Order: sequence, then structure tokens, then C-alpha cells
Amino acid sequence: MPHQAIRILATGGTFDKEYNELTGELFFKSTHIGDMLQLGRCHLDVEIETLMMIDSLNMTDADRRLILDRCRAVPEERIVITHGTDTMAETAAVLGVGLNGTARTVVVTGAMVPYQFGSSDGMFNLGTALAFVQTLPAQVYVAMNGRCFLWDSVRKDKKKGVFEPRPRSRK
Amino acid sequence: MPHQAIRILATGGTFDKEYNELTGELFFKSTHIGDMLQLGRCHLDVEIETLMMIDSLNMTDADRRLILDRCRAVPEERIVITHGTDTMAETAAVLGVGLNGTARTVVVTGAMVPYQFGSSDGMFNLGTALAFVQTLPAQVYVAMNGRCFLWDSVRKDKKKGVFEPRPRSRK
Amino acid sequence: MPHQAIRILATGGTFDKEYNELTGELFFKSTHIGDMLQLGRCHLDVEIETLMMIDSLNMTDADRRLILDRCRAVPEERIVITHGTDTMAETAAVLGVGLNGTARTVVVTGAMVPYQFGSSDGMFNLGTALAFVQTLPAQVYVAMNGRCFLWDSVRKDKKKGVFEPRPRSRK
Amino acid sequence: MPHQAIRILATGGTFDKEYNELTGELFFKSTHIGDMLQLGRCHLDVEIETLMMIDSLNMTDADRRLILDRCRAVPEERIVITHGTDTMAETAAVLGVGLNGTARTVVVTGAMVPYQFGSSDGMFNLGTALAFVQTLPAQVYVAMNGRCFLWDSVRKDKKKGVFEPRPRSRK
Repeated sequence: MPHQAIRILATGGTFDKEYNELTGELFFKSTHIGDMLQLGRCHLDVEIETLMMIDSLNMTDADRRLILDRCRAVPEERIVITHGTDTMAETAAVLGVGLNGTARTVVVTGAMVPYQFGSSDGMFNLGTALAFVQTLPAQVYVAMNGRCFLWDSVRKDKKKGVFEPRPRSRK
Repeated sequence: MPHQAIRILATGGTFDKEYNELTGELFFKSTHIGDMLQLGRCHLDVEIETLMMIDSLNMTDADRRLILDRCRAVPEERIVITHGTDTMAETAAVLGVGLNGTARTVVVTGAMVPYQFGSSDGMFNLGTALAFVQTLPAQVYVAMNGRCFLWDSVRKDKKKGVFEPRPRSRK
Repeated sequence: MPHQAIRILATGGTFDKEYNELTGELFFKSTHIGDMLQLGRCHLDVEIETLMMIDSLNMTDADRRLILDRCRAVPEERIVITHGTDTMAETAAVLGVGLNGTARTVVVTGAMVPYQFGSSDGMFNLGTALAFVQTLPAQVYVAMNGRCFLWDSVRKDKKKGVFEPRPRSRK
Repeated sequence: MPHQAIRILATGGTFDKEYNELTGELFFKSTHIGDMLQLGRCHLDVEIETLMMIDSLNMTDADRRLILDRCRAVPEERIVITHGTDTMAETAAVLGVGLNGTARTVVVTGAMVPYQFGSSDGMFNLGTALAFVQTLPAQVYVAMNGRCFLWDSVRKDKKKGVFEPRPRSRK
């Protein structure tokens, strides 16, 4: 496969939650994606950019607009977005519509367990996302649980914490 | 992406090395791939089969023949092979020639750090391998360092522990 | 040192906090002290008893009365109490007064980082507590940061998350 | 307990074994005791000194003489020695005889699992050793498995990897 430049847009989510040992609370500081790529011995040509560090339950329309704007503006055509899982499908839908017809391949991914607490699923998902983004045609996808879903046919089963296919809505 | 059955053939390698706390030596017992998929919250349709549990420096021609035979015999057309990194490219070459013209997509992957010692690169590589195997056309590949190489154009830089492109040899 | 039976009374605290990956919240389920002793290859004669599983900020006078009652009732004269750090000194004071004149050696200890998130300080503190409880005379102590404090001369510096000596109050 | 200065003499052993991901072999580089004390949030007054970084099976009489000399020479009367478990009892015996009649309290400890592989028993043992060294009278001890043994009445059961009492030999 030819070496292609990849942009990672970090927005927070469980990936980047940290434990504050003074207050006993979870919080965000800065992204761990760089550390994760180093642990993964990743040698791809990757640029990491932090857009926000938030729980995806708190993500606003303006935040999603910013993510979409950055997807359009960055020079790379291959983009991975790290994102909280709760509203991942919602953001993917905004991007799916907004990037329709462009040459962008966008893969949104996340984690169920924070990196700092030994997030094996974060390492695994980041691996799948970086592989899918290199190989799939221009579209917006969600990569979770080893699987890759088109933005318009995925939903999170919040009881099980698992992503699954959703029948595409017809007009 | 349609859900496709995947076969994982485990052969050992650093992935599955364990530390014997009584002797202070590294050894093989059984594969950790199942645990890794569980930690990764993987929901793919995966069948794990252990072919051998060895250091790839000890892999013989007969071992490679066995791997090739299993790649031909298993019902799944998508196959991931976990393998020691030292002779991974060699095994990939045997499979590349032997599976030429078949409908098999085979991805060989490995780890630099044993799973039992917190192998973040193992989780990452396994993620990339499972994604590549779902999306790439029938051929034999090596997936390491986030990248995917065709079997006839990869080599391991043993000083750096990194896989890199190798110019295809011409006749 | 003669082998002496030790009772561990678990009350919760950071030691035993877990991460709920479905809700993203921290919660209590059951104590990890048994797992920790196994990882520590501990071969002491230890009996673990869970009295409550709570954040020590929520500990009531009735809870402390229960802990005191159990310290008096258990057959072992050597007792370790695992406890949240926020009100550890307060509980130690209740026990110090209530057990005055008995043959009980009681060591209260805790952790800054949950076991489930790789609590190295939990393993370390549990080690110190079990050693102090075997060697110190009948009294009530707090063991944190490698140090051991008498119940009436310790306080937590909440800004630093560190326990330190407190001048004994005079009448 | 009054704050007392403690010297830690590092000699290697499983504590400090590392995995070389290029060769797949275990080796020694430098001690992790400082990192372990930091993870343990230890606030004792501790000085760490590396005497050697070896497997205790390779420890010579000259090495043991050096350890004994340092125990006599250092200003601190409280000394913890980190050591491979295989010949720990042997070194303790050399020190027990050689320090007889001095004011030194010496605690020898070790680990069954390297720190780098998540050595929970290392953290636990280091905790017990630092507590025992603060509280026990001048003598030479082995601290393993949560227990503390006098130098002349301990042996390692190599089949189980556990330390246990040994009847003192009579003349």
C-alpha cells in the first residue's frame, strides 16, 4: 500500500479520560493518541490535532460543525476522528452528509475504557481505524468492535455497549 | 461492510510468550488471541485455531507447509496469521507463492512485546490485521507498524525492529 | 516472626472503585483485596471481611461504630482496615479512642488510585500495612506513603494527597 | 514513628529485569526502584544506590562481600536490599554473620515478576520491606510473601517459588 498521510482529529471521549487522584473524579487534560501510536510502534505518516477534549454527551451542533470544517480544511484525504461513543453515530451522520461528494475517507472511532486504565480496546480500535482509513473508499465510517459501518447504517446498543448495523431509513 | 467469517491461525511468536516466574525464563503455553479479542471488545465472526506455539526463529519448512495447507483447507476466505516477527516475511513469501490464484486474503501479523507484559503493540497490530483482512483483495500481506505490505515487498529491519518496504526483486 | 492470624476489614475507598464502561462512571462492586494478596504472592494467614463498599466521604457515625464493633469482636488481634483516604484519619481516631486498652493492633490504609486502574500505590500500601500490623504494639495506626502514624497525630494534606504528621492536640 | 533515613541497595534480580524487544531476551539496564517508590507515593526519606545489576544465580562471594561492606559503610542504620530470589537466603546469611553486633537493621527482598511486566508482587514486597525495616530491631531479615524471616531460619521452596521457615541448624 502506498504511504498516505493521515490526519487524526482528537475530540476527547473515553480514550482520553483521566483519573484525578486528588478528587477521585474523571476529567480531560490532553490527548493520549500520540502515546498510543508510540506504544503501537506505529510508523504511519500521522498528524494529530486536538479539536476539543470533551465527553461526547456534551458535544454541541457547533462542535460538530467545527469537526466538519476541519475535515474539509485539512490537506490529508484520510482522516481518523477519536470520539466519545455515546454520540459517535450522530457526529458520523453530520459528517456523512456534509462531506458527501468529497474525496475524504473519514473513520470515527472510540473506546469503552480509558487509555490510562489500560485501554486495550482503545489500542485495538485505533489499529482498526487506521487500517480502514487506508483501504476504504471516500465515505464516512464508524469503526468499533473490529467492524466498520457506513455512517448511515450504524447505532450503539447502549445497554450492551456494542455497535451494530442499523437498517438504513428510507424516504 | 458485510459480516464475513475470519479464521485466525495462531503460530506463537512474541504475542504469546509468557514469563515463567519459577525459572525466570520465557516460554509458550497457549495462545492469548482469544483474551485479546475479548479485551478489544471485538464482535467479528472469528474462529481461532492454534497450529503451533513456537518462536519463529525455530520455524521449519514443514511448519510453513502446515500453515499453507491450513490456509488452503479452512472454509474462511479471510485469514489472519499471528507469527513471530523474525521470519514473518519468509512465511508470507511461502504463502504468497502457494496461495497464488486462490480467493484467500491472508494477513500475517505479530508483536514486539508479549501480551502478558502489556503488549499494546499486539492489540494495535491485531486491530490493523483484522481490518486489513476485511477490506483488501485476495493476496498475502504483512501488517506491522500500522502499515500493510504485500508479501513480496517487505522486510524487517532487525536493528530497529521495524518493518519497511523492500524493492521487489526482478528476474 | 511467628505466624499470626490477621483480619482485613474492607470498607471500600479508592482501592475498590471500578469503572463502569457502559455509563462512564466510577462505582463499587466488591473488594479486590483478595486479588491483590494473590498478585502479591502473600502467604500470610489472612481473613478478608467486607463491612461496606463506600466512598469514605459518605461514611457515617453508624458506619464507624460498626467498624469499631467488628474490631472488638473478631478473634484476630492484628487487624488491617482498607478505607477511603478522605476520612481515614477520622475513622482511625474513633478506633483509637474506642479500642484504648485492648490488645488490638489496627492499621488503617488506603489507595490514591483504584486497583482496577493499575493501583501500584494500593499494592505498596497494602504491603506496608500488613508488615506494620505484624510488628507494631497494640494501638491504632494509619499507614500511607510508606509511613505509619499513630491515630492521634496524622492528617491528610488534601491538596497534595499526602499524609503527614499532625501535632497532637494538648488540653 | 519517627522519620528515619533508609538506604536501599539495589543488586538486580527479577525486580529489574527488562524485555529486549529486538532480541526477545531478558536483560538488566538500571534499577526501577525509584519509579516504584514514586508509583507507591512513598514519602520516606530514602536513598537508592545501585551496587550491581545481576541475576542472583550469578552472584559471587566477591559480590556478597561488596554488599556487606556497603551495609557497614553507609550512614543509615536502616537498609533494604533488593535481590534476586534464588540466592537471597545465602546473601542474607553472609550479612547476618557479618553484621552481627552492629546497629544495622537489614531487610532483603525481591520479586517473582519483573516490574516492567506489571510486578504487583514487587510493589507489595517493597512495601513490606520498607515497613519491616522501620519497625524491627537490628538484625538481618528476608521479607517475602508478606512475611519476615530471620536470616538463619529461611529457605526458598524453589518448586513453589515461596519462602518458608527453615529450622535453625544446631551444632
